[in-house]
Amino acid sequence: MHFSSAHEASRLQLNPQGRLRHFLTTEGLSREQLTEILDTAEGFIDPVSGVIRNSPLLAGRTVMNLFFEASTRTRTTFEVAAKRLGADVLNIDISKSSTSKGETLRDMLWNLQAMTADIFVVRHGDSGAPHFIASQVTPKVAVINAGDGRHAHPTQAMLDMLTIRRHAGAFENLSVAIIGDIRHSRVARSEIHALQTLGAKEIRVIAPRTLLPRDFDNLGIKVFERMEEGLADVDVAIALRIQNERMESALLPGADEFYTLYGLTREKLKYAKPDAIVMHPGPINRGVEIESEVADGPQSVILHQVNYGIAVRMAVLSLAMQGQMDGR
Amino acid sequence: MHFSSAHEASRLQLNPQGRLRHFLTTEGLSREQLTEILDTAEGFIDPVSGVIRNSPLLAGRTVMNLFFEASTRTRTTFEVAAKRLGADVLNIDISKSSTSKGETLRDMLWNLQAMTADIFVVRHGDSGAPHFIASQVTPKVAVINAGDGRHAHPTQAMLDMLTIRRHAGAFENLSVAIIGDIRHSRVARSEIHALQTLGAKEIRVIAPRTLLPRDFDNLGIKVFERMEEGLADVDVAIALRIQNERMESALLPGADEFYTLYGLTREKLKYAKPDAIVMHPGPINRGVEIESEVADGPQSVILHQVNYGIAVRMAVLSLAMQGQMDGR
Amino acid sequence: MHFSSAHEASRLQLNPQGRLRHFLTTEGLSREQLTEILDTAEGFIDPVSGVIRNSPLLAGRTVMNLFFEASTRTRTTFEVAAKRLGADVLNIDISKSSTSKGETLRDMLWNLQAMTADIFVVRHGDSGAPHFIASQVTPKVAVINAGDGRHAHPTQAMLDMLTIRRHAGAFENLSVAIIGDIRHSRVARSEIHALQTLGAKEIRVIAPRTLLPRDFDNLGIKVFERMEEGLADVDVAIALRIQNERMESALLPGADEFYTLYGLTREKLKYAKPDAIVMHPGPINRGVEIESEVADGPQSVILHQVNYGIAVRMAVLSLAMQGQMDGR
Repeated sequence: MHFSSAHEASRLQLNPQGRLRHFLTTEGLSREQLTEILDTAEGFIDPVSGVIRNSPLLAGRTVMNLFFEASTRTRTTFEVAAKRLGADVLNIDISKSSTSKGETLRDMLWNLQAMTADIFVVRHGDSGAPHFIASQVTPKVAVINAGDGRHAHPTQAMLDMLTIRRHAGAFENLSVAIIGDIRHSRVARSEIHALQTLGAKEIRVIAPRTLLPRDFDNLGIKVFERMEEGLADVDVAIALRIQNERMESALLPGADEFYTLYGLTREKLKYAKPDAIVMHPGPINRGVEIESEVADGPQSVILHQVNYGIAVRMAVLSLAMQGQMDGR
Repeated sequence: MHFSSAHEASRLQLNPQGRLRHFLTTEGLSREQLTEILDTAEGFIDPVSGVIRNSPLLAGRTVMNLFFEASTRTRTTFEVAAKRLGADVLNIDISKSSTSKGETLRDMLWNLQAMTADIFVVRHGDSGAPHFIASQVTPKVAVINAGDGRHAHPTQAMLDMLTIRRHAGAFENLSVAIIGDIRHSRVARSEIHALQTLGAKEIRVIAPRTLLPRDFDNLGIKVFERMEEGLADVDVAIALRIQNERMESALLPGADEFYTLYGLTREKLKYAKPDAIVMHPGPINRGVEIESEVADGPQSVILHQVNYGIAVRMAVLSLAMQGQMDGR
Repeated sequence: MHFSSAHEASRLQLNPQGRLRHFLTTEGLSREQLTEILDTAEGFIDPVSGVIRNSPLLAGRTVMNLFFEASTRTRTTFEVAAKRLGADVLNIDISKSSTSKGETLRDMLWNLQAMTADIFVVRHGDSGAPHFIASQVTPKVAVINAGDGRHAHPTQAMLDMLTIRRHAGAFENLSVAIIGDIRHSRVARSEIHALQTLGAKEIRVIAPRTLLPRDFDNLGIKVFERMEEGLADVDVAIALRIQNERMESALLPGADEFYTLYGLTREKLKYAKPDAIVMHPGPINRGVEIESEVADGPQSVILHQVNYGIAVRMAVLSLAMQGQMDGR
């Protein structure tokens, strides 16, 4: 699945009034649109206690989780978020066989739509699958991308943006480093687009050459192969998860050597600013991408990320539902 | 499991006031009783927008889905319907081993009843299992048959009746043809009983001799072996799903030959009335029972069937619950 | 996992005001504390109809079922109880691999806590796992023990206590016999602690020597090897479930011989008081621990136990949530 431009992909997720009616990618959305998501999410968080408050914005709505690729963790966050908005949530069992042919997938989705689905939360191993569903199959069901192939993971990116805004401050003052397997990471792609749009002062990636994307020159970000240089004076350090299956391939020299070179240790973290925050999309491989003492240390905001993920998903679900209604 | 008469099976699903308290079969129910189900379902559909409206008729009730035979599709429709009525819904994991002995099944059901179940939605591979549960095991739990063996699939039949009434008009003016594997189809059985009771002008079945039931003479319906004759001037054409496992057996000459002879194509549909509607219980085997252009064409009401299925299941769930309460 | 004393284990489950904030074990709780659970449960039961009433005490709360050991039956009772209290309930899929290392379990639990879980219902094959979670991992999430190893099954014990109180009367007048595999039974352990605290007149266990615990002397209960003597004039007879895997081991002489010696038959039940009640934690092995005619007979309260289990779990869930809130 390819889209000719960020413009086209972005337009697909907006209604005629320019409001979100799907949430497929951070790419191509405006600073105002991303900021609205962050502000809406923040509105669910009690300013004093920090507790996430419920809101009946999706009462009577039916949210269907379609996880073609298993992820208990992400599915659970969407299930909690939708229920906190008063929605009925169904986790659809998807047999892999029934999705091998595009046409069968189409029929399945048409049927789920006819069963009065209002929102599909879609995770799929193929890049572009949520776009395909939103554009070609069920445009009147709000489609939320919960991760597609190597393409995008926009709710993860937005919860990271909310974490940065709350714990590190205004984007225009911030230098942000993303560390690890940039090439295969949909999280990194979505983060970079969001950081650029939100006006981060500086975006860096730190990775061995084998884990850098090939088409990276035009993204306007700084590339480092050594942690000492890449982390120097950053405000935010984001360690990516290394997929175990990749560590066994020829791309990487093994978990031990990766940790030695790129593991986020107390030692290496000293290169960053003293109050730099440490983030990770989870689940953590302790001793591979990150030292336990850093993950659990005072600079880590990793569990805040998880918590804000509920608020961000509540924001995206309710905004897209509203955009669907207004756009009809 | 055998019942000596339609009268007995029907009586079992009625309370002393003659109202539904289980929904096991369309057989033996009166025209008034079937019409009440259709009218109740129609009451959930907004007359202007066609949107299905929620109603708190089952608030505080516990609905348990007991699918001894897997069916994500049908289970999902019942889950949506029950949640739209405000019920708590539990999908019970049923290990096949625990149901091999009748006595163990009985203990399991007694336990679920004691866990304050109000309604069991039962799908079972054995014909008569829902009757057995309603009559012998848990008569005070409302039992809804979601398909039992080759016996009955009454909610599918009733959503088909609602589709026909809304899209083709009054039953007494209609000629309805059912095409395909009549012999093994619980859908066909339940449809035929409902059509007879509701006073359809003419009921036809079109099938190769090997797929006709043996005890068919006394059902008062017309049998055709050729589509040209069977479809002539019908108002409604219902293509049944061919089970893949059957196509590999000696009963059928193979998917290609079946499609040539009995596939509902644009070509063959010309024999029907020009405004005839096309139906299918789903999931569709495109290019086996039905041509894609027919399934997706202007005469197809297949996705309306799915949508009305929610309203019909809401109707049956709420009527049976009410009948249980009144009958106590 | 070992706790130095009942006192320590008990203290862990109480907030500074001495109210329940976790429910991990019946051991070490006071008579007043156990009685409060029973009274709260009884408050959910309509005194006239016996129907269990809903209450919105957990509205807006998120309950997560963490069953590291599968149990559809117990999980279902907690799911029904939590939904009757208005909670959102999530059944978390737990891959066994992710729990092989303590640290990974810890990360998973921290993440679920950050996803705004209010209550964890934990079943685990290792004794002490719920204590470990409540003390070391997520003390601000209310932890309910749904059975841990051979250690405790406190909600089962408390539903048994409620059954005894409602059907046999005041504990101080009662002689209670527990029959079967005492050594491996977490149910028996929790029952014995609860019966002692609630002041039962006499507690007996009846078992072959191989199924008695080795450290039994100090529990102050009477041990019998013969049913005739052990059942003599008891008010309550509780048959434990024999695990099939144990019957195949060298510990037991086989199901037939066990039934001959220890099966609760009409014949043997005659030794008890004429109005003695018969209990079993379920699921029943008919013809192994208990004769079918006894399980289904007039003295059996087995299905009442299941029913009261909903009310007791509602009580424990709502009390622990309240204790968490008050204790913060």
